[in-house]
Amino acid sequence: MAGMRIASCRAEFAVPDDVAYFNTASLGPLLHVVRDAGEEALRRRAAPWTISADDWFTDIETLRALVGRLVGDDADGVAFVPATSYGFAVAALNLPVPSGSRIMVLAGEYPSGVYTWRRHAAQFGAEVLTVGREPGQSWTDAVLAGLDERVAIVSVPQVYWTDGAWVDLG
Amino acid sequence: MAGMRIASCRAEFAVPDDVAYFNTASLGPLLHVVRDAGEEALRRRAAPWTISADDWFTDIETLRALVGRLVGDDADGVAFVPATSYGFAVAALNLPVPSGSRIMVLAGEYPSGVYTWRRHAAQFGAEVLTVGREPGQSWTDAVLAGLDERVAIVSVPQVYWTDGAWVDLG
Repeated sequence: MAGMRIASCRAEFAVPDDVAYFNTASLGPLLHVVRDAGEEALRRRAAPWTISADDWFTDIETLRALVGRLVGDDADGVAFVPATSYGFAVAALNLPVPSGSRIMVLAGEYPSGVYTWRRHAAQFGAEVLTVGREPGQSWTDAVLAGLDERVAIVSVPQVYWTDGAWVDLG
Repeated sequence: MAGMRIASCRAEFAVPDDVAYFNTASLGPLLHVVRDAGEEALRRRAAPWTISADDWFTDIETLRALVGRLVGDDADGVAFVPATSYGFAVAALNLPVPSGSRIMVLAGEYPSGVYTWRRHAAQFGAEVLTVGREPGQSWTDAVLAGLDERVAIVSVPQVYWTDGAWVDLG
């Protein structure tokens, strides 16, 4: 079944038949519809006399609602930022933590997901707890093993960036 | 002369002959070469297996050097940020001001160029000095009239955003 679904998905992506691309945890391939949307955005941007004030907001609100549906939330739970580091900075500014508490990150995490918390920990007298994986242990189990009442923030991805390993957030 | 130069520039922009576009202080028209670069970037992004680690840095360094040359500086004096507000925030974090000092902005400035300084002023016990233009007065003269020893930061654009009026920074 899974094989069938992958085969039917392949045609949706702008990946030629003679290319097998695996590095999706770093940089994903483009869907044809995403490529088309990019070209349409360029075409529109090249004719600024056709862009009205509403156009700055309409598409992004549609996208927020669609992403919300994808993650089981509503549009108000979704914000777009131009880089992960900016998103972390905004989150940190809104998450003061008690002195002596811990902020959990995964070992080898991408720097955007670590630097903000190092600074945040220093600012509040907290510490960064870096969770590693024992041989054979899943990231999910490693995270659960590190959780206790001292952990104030858990900052983990759904998919680990170097190998695509899954972290069960559910 | 100026008319001749404008005529010869027109062909460089992706603006049809039957369109006269003036709202450039808000959203500029695209040069053909910029549109082409956008299409090339999309084409490259659609083939992530051809993107190497160097590709994340090479183009931006070339661009920093070119922009530096344009503004009479070198690449080290140029940084790209995804939004004006982020640029202001980074600048503010690096510009502590004395209590009682002033931060100068222009009346009716775009919000990105004001909100950061309001907060900055509140943080340091400084104040925002909003400079308006008297009838017939240039922005440059209005700025010079507001300058005194209390002004710690002058935050003004080279071109006023609503009407394209020039501010002489030289």
